[in-house]
Amino acid sequence: MFSIESLNKLQEWFAKLPGIGPKSAARLAYHVIEMDPEEVKQFAQDMYKARLAVKYCRICGNLTDHETCSICEDATRDQSTVCVVKDARDVMALERVREFHGVYHVLGGTISPLDGVGPDDIRVKELLGRVKEGNIKELILATNPDVQGEATAVYIAKLMEPFDVKVTRIAHGVPVGGELEYTDEVTLMKSLEGRRQF
Amino acid sequence: MFSIESLNKLQEWFAKLPGIGPKSAARLAYHVIEMDPEEVKQFAQDMYKARLAVKYCRICGNLTDHETCSICEDATRDQSTVCVVKDARDVMALERVREFHGVYHVLGGTISPLDGVGPDDIRVKELLGRVKEGNIKELILATNPDVQGEATAVYIAKLMEPFDVKVTRIAHGVPVGGELEYTDEVTLMKSLEGRRQF
Repeated sequence: MFSIESLNKLQEWFAKLPGIGPKSAARLAYHVIEMDPEEVKQFAQDMYKARLAVKYCRICGNLTDHETCSICEDATRDQSTVCVVKDARDVMALERVREFHGVYHVLGGTISPLDGVGPDDIRVKELLGRVKEGNIKELILATNPDVQGEATAVYIAKLMEPFDVKVTRIAHGVPVGGELEYTDEVTLMKSLEGRRQF
Repeated sequence: MFSIESLNKLQEWFAKLPGIGPKSAARLAYHVIEMDPEEVKQFAQDMYKARLAVKYCRICGNLTDHETCSICEDATRDQSTVCVVKDARDVMALERVREFHGVYHVLGGTISPLDGVGPDDIRVKELLGRVKEGNIKELILATNPDVQGEATAVYIAKLMEPFDVKVTRIAHGVPVGGELEYTDEVTLMKSLEGRRQF
């Protein structure tokens, strides 16, 4: 069958990316082939540069292109309130809200025994270290409301019991704009459990 | 807001690709950041290499990494039957069928006055040149059955009238596996027009 090796190779690379099937990969590869060569060069360089530049913040584990991330270095933010999340994408999501003025701790995953991920495989030890330093007043556990996220939250909450730190969990409930009729039972139960005085 | 320049840049590149929205672009950029640096280097190199390696076949305009494409160079193929298509993706699609044993002519677009694309902007002159050489017996016009594809087919058919070449158009009709009930009127009309003795 007709095929060009370098084009196939590029197609294979695209197909490895999340959410890109074989047909989309072909479409992307063909698009790159039709782009200006100088532009493709820039794209390729920027990709490798980004990979080399971006590392993990020494303090919170968030992505950064310095030693520590811009959030940890921001003196106007409340360093005593730490929001614990699964990964850097969650930090981005929360930052978009512009409502949280504390700092973060990025776990880099959640506890999942079935996948062989235990507490030592995520940044729990580092979180414990930060709490032991004694400057943290509140930990907001903002892992996802799924089995792994819940298990991780419970594990961290237990781990923090000996320390003088308030541990809270983000609220689960009916999303704003959502409809009760189409909300699953567990979410409805959580929204009843978490009800507040009007 | 929290952001990393090199990561944003990579995100912007991905967002320029077809079918990739801002959310997908972010997901892809984060994925690349979490890949092994050596792998990213290879990906970037392969991308630029593919762009440099792939060019247009001197004869038919198909993509190739040589002067002429492997189809034009294949002595077992019937060089007197030429299938005229819009772009190289169409060649790939037809080659997957493994039923066509002629060669191709890739126009690199279709006539579309509204977009300012005239006959001189696509490879019609080159097709005329091939026909004038006198070795072509049949031209199969396989442009898409849309307004531009149809207009292009009509234009080429008229252009070929002075020459001793058979000009055919691919059949339009109800796709195999499709249902009459859900087929649009124009396609149904075409499938009636194109009916054949059973």
